[in-house]
Amino acid sequence: MTDATPAPAQGPQISDFRLANGLDVVVIPDHRAPVVTHMVWYRNGSADDPIGKSGIAHFLEHLMFKGTEAHGPGVFSDRVAELGGQENAFTSNDYTAYFQRVAREHLGEVMAFEADRMTGLTLSDEVVAPERDVVLEERRMRTDSDPSAQLQEAVQSALFAHHPYGLPVIGWEHEIAALNRDDALAYYRRFYTPENAVLVVAGDVDAQEVRALAEATYGRIPARGAAPVRTRPQEPPLRAHRLVSLADPKVEQPSVSRIYIVPSYRTAAPGVAEGLEVLAHLIGGGATSLFYRRLVMEKKVAVAAGAYYLGTAVDDTRFYLYALPAPDVSLDTLDREIEALLVEAQTTLFPAEELERAKNRLVADAIYAQDNQTAMARWYGASLAIGASIEDIRDWPNRIEAVTAQAVREAARSLDRRRAVTGYLLSEQTPQAA
Amino acid sequence: MTDATPAPAQGPQISDFRLANGLDVVVIPDHRAPVVTHMVWYRNGSADDPIGKSGIAHFLEHLMFKGTEAHGPGVFSDRVAELGGQENAFTSNDYTAYFQRVAREHLGEVMAFEADRMTGLTLSDEVVAPERDVVLEERRMRTDSDPSAQLQEAVQSALFAHHPYGLPVIGWEHEIAALNRDDALAYYRRFYTPENAVLVVAGDVDAQEVRALAEATYGRIPARGAAPVRTRPQEPPLRAHRLVSLADPKVEQPSVSRIYIVPSYRTAAPGVAEGLEVLAHLIGGGATSLFYRRLVMEKKVAVAAGAYYLGTAVDDTRFYLYALPAPDVSLDTLDREIEALLVEAQTTLFPAEELERAKNRLVADAIYAQDNQTAMARWYGASLAIGASIEDIRDWPNRIEAVTAQAVREAARSLDRRRAVTGYLLSEQTPQAA
Repeated sequence: MTDATPAPAQGPQISDFRLANGLDVVVIPDHRAPVVTHMVWYRNGSADDPIGKSGIAHFLEHLMFKGTEAHGPGVFSDRVAELGGQENAFTSNDYTAYFQRVAREHLGEVMAFEADRMTGLTLSDEVVAPERDVVLEERRMRTDSDPSAQLQEAVQSALFAHHPYGLPVIGWEHEIAALNRDDALAYYRRFYTPENAVLVVAGDVDAQEVRALAEATYGRIPARGAAPVRTRPQEPPLRAHRLVSLADPKVEQPSVSRIYIVPSYRTAAPGVAEGLEVLAHLIGGGATSLFYRRLVMEKKVAVAAGAYYLGTAVDDTRFYLYALPAPDVSLDTLDREIEALLVEAQTTLFPAEELERAKNRLVADAIYAQDNQTAMARWYGASLAIGASIEDIRDWPNRIEAVTAQAVREAARSLDRRRAVTGYLLSEQTPQAA
Repeated sequence: MTDATPAPAQGPQISDFRLANGLDVVVIPDHRAPVVTHMVWYRNGSADDPIGKSGIAHFLEHLMFKGTEAHGPGVFSDRVAELGGQENAFTSNDYTAYFQRVAREHLGEVMAFEADRMTGLTLSDEVVAPERDVVLEERRMRTDSDPSAQLQEAVQSALFAHHPYGLPVIGWEHEIAALNRDDALAYYRRFYTPENAVLVVAGDVDAQEVRALAEATYGRIPARGAAPVRTRPQEPPLRAHRLVSLADPKVEQPSVSRIYIVPSYRTAAPGVAEGLEVLAHLIGGGATSLFYRRLVMEKKVAVAAGAYYLGTAVDDTRFYLYALPAPDVSLDTLDREIEALLVEAQTTLFPAEELERAKNRLVADAIYAQDNQTAMARWYGASLAIGASIEDIRDWPNRIEAVTAQAVREAARSLDRRRAVTGYLLSEQTPQAA
């Protein structure tokens, strides 16, 4: 399928509507089991943290479990557990989301709880201070004791001169340590509004049912008048290559990574993001990719290699290349091999059959994802949270099918090593770390 | 002089006082010629630029010559020229300053003009837009066409993960292009207040005379009530080395630099900044320094080499090492030589006579600076603008004299390569750029 005919209606009939208070609602029917996945996505993430208060989006995500005027601390979570359900929450650069998975008959109750904490959160210093210690400990566990995470933090920081994607989602330690109740409440009041949220319900329900439940719960929250505005400094064009290297005896597997700033689905000209998506798959998506074949199978200089494109982002985003060296292969050597393959992708066209296979794989993966209720809910929620429409998502397979070998080559040419960041993770200082 | 006895009263009798509206005044008598240097320092610089509006401090510095309610555009400058005087202005990370040098009898007139533009600035879109083009052109000339400046911009950005010292003083091009009259006026009203300024008058005047003139000019400006607060995100401890490299055929002389974040005079524990100052002089201050002797004279791997410490800063600041390679010497080789010398400074003590010579030189330089009226005015102005006191400045020679060889070694040990940024300026891509 290389023409731009519409994708077959292989998926469920997705509905979307907006409540009078501005809340966007998406319903994804899935009647295979009597369960529902209920998610609320807020269109704010770590990249919206006020300056000097990095980590506040993530910290508030923790605090959202601390109770409301109507329900004491932990009551919502306890109830989900009592119902045999699951719950979780996560914070990313561009959004914060909360979800529960419960039997279908409990959807209304879960919605009432979640709607309640959209505006009813209560916080005391007694809950804020210990939770801040929890987050600090989370940071110590995940980052400060892990050389790979330390390197990633430094790489992101070096990549973004100015844009807050360079900040760690969890925040810098000294800024987390200074966050307090007032910060959390100010942030909460600014971003936790119906206009700033997307409700996604997937599962054994229909749109009418969800609409009625949504009206009865979220619909009772007054509109704020306008959605909060994301104001982020944009990235200047740096013109120097940056090699970030970290050596630590705890490193058991060295690695080299290469990161480029590229347009996202949101910021790209038509077709550009899709070209990057297909390129990532062709050079680094699995065992048939260029990187894997050449670096791992043929030259045996790497034990693993890949590429990926973080296209779902509000602002210009990241394209990653990485490889783990085989024993006794230096990172410099491996980096040169990566560069050579990239030059190949910049100067030659991928064969038609490889291109078709990659595009089919990407589209098929999206179709298979429909088999997973939570994955579907996450896909729609994340896409809408960054500003895409239901139509953008529906049309995505067609846009991938339309990618040509020339567009893939253009995508490769947009990856300019002179402006990229390379990351070296080493077990000990060696000359290769320059 | 190795003990901590007070420095001899070798300098002029400096006076300082504060007007009722909060303006700090420093008077530095210098009666050798009938001229005066008049400076106003504002305690805000590029590191106080609001997020997303980089370059506003510098842009406003330009706009301050565009006239007030009382005096049209250019009238002040024309008058200074008519009086046979000189004038200038400059913006740095931490301050913005304006100065004039005129015959002593014109001091009152110049003060009246400068006091007038502290609060009387008028701006129209007709003057703002063309001046913005001037600044954009200044940026293009200085940075965008100069590989060395491009590299420096990338190095500063990589060095500071978070703190605004990582932003260029002139601003990022896309943000300068978006600055407008409202931005400039909002910034002006926030920072151009008597409480935020330091007036320095050096020359053929005495304190009583300056006080009377200051009361009659600046003294008529109402107090705002409080000085504006500098709120800047502080730097997290990055733990990865960063090598920033830029290759451009326009580069005629390659270079390697190494930059560390270190405490400033303002942030350091007692004695630490002074140790760094003496270290910079010992390893990189002129033809008798360790770097020059070893790299240029003995090994002949460099044609120049040096070090300096930017101690006059509000927040943690920068310590620089640099060298220019001799022909056919690679930057990697030179970087390893630098590292070896630094290890030497970290593991051995400088000989007593070298240490004495360095300290004597630093103190002598400060004494010689007293011979230059403008240099003295700048020294006091910059120091007070970053929060130092007159006593700090007076006592500085004693604190330098008190630095021990052990303190210098500690200073060297605080320079951790694992957290530093290295900059490579190259004429063409080579493997050494990794």
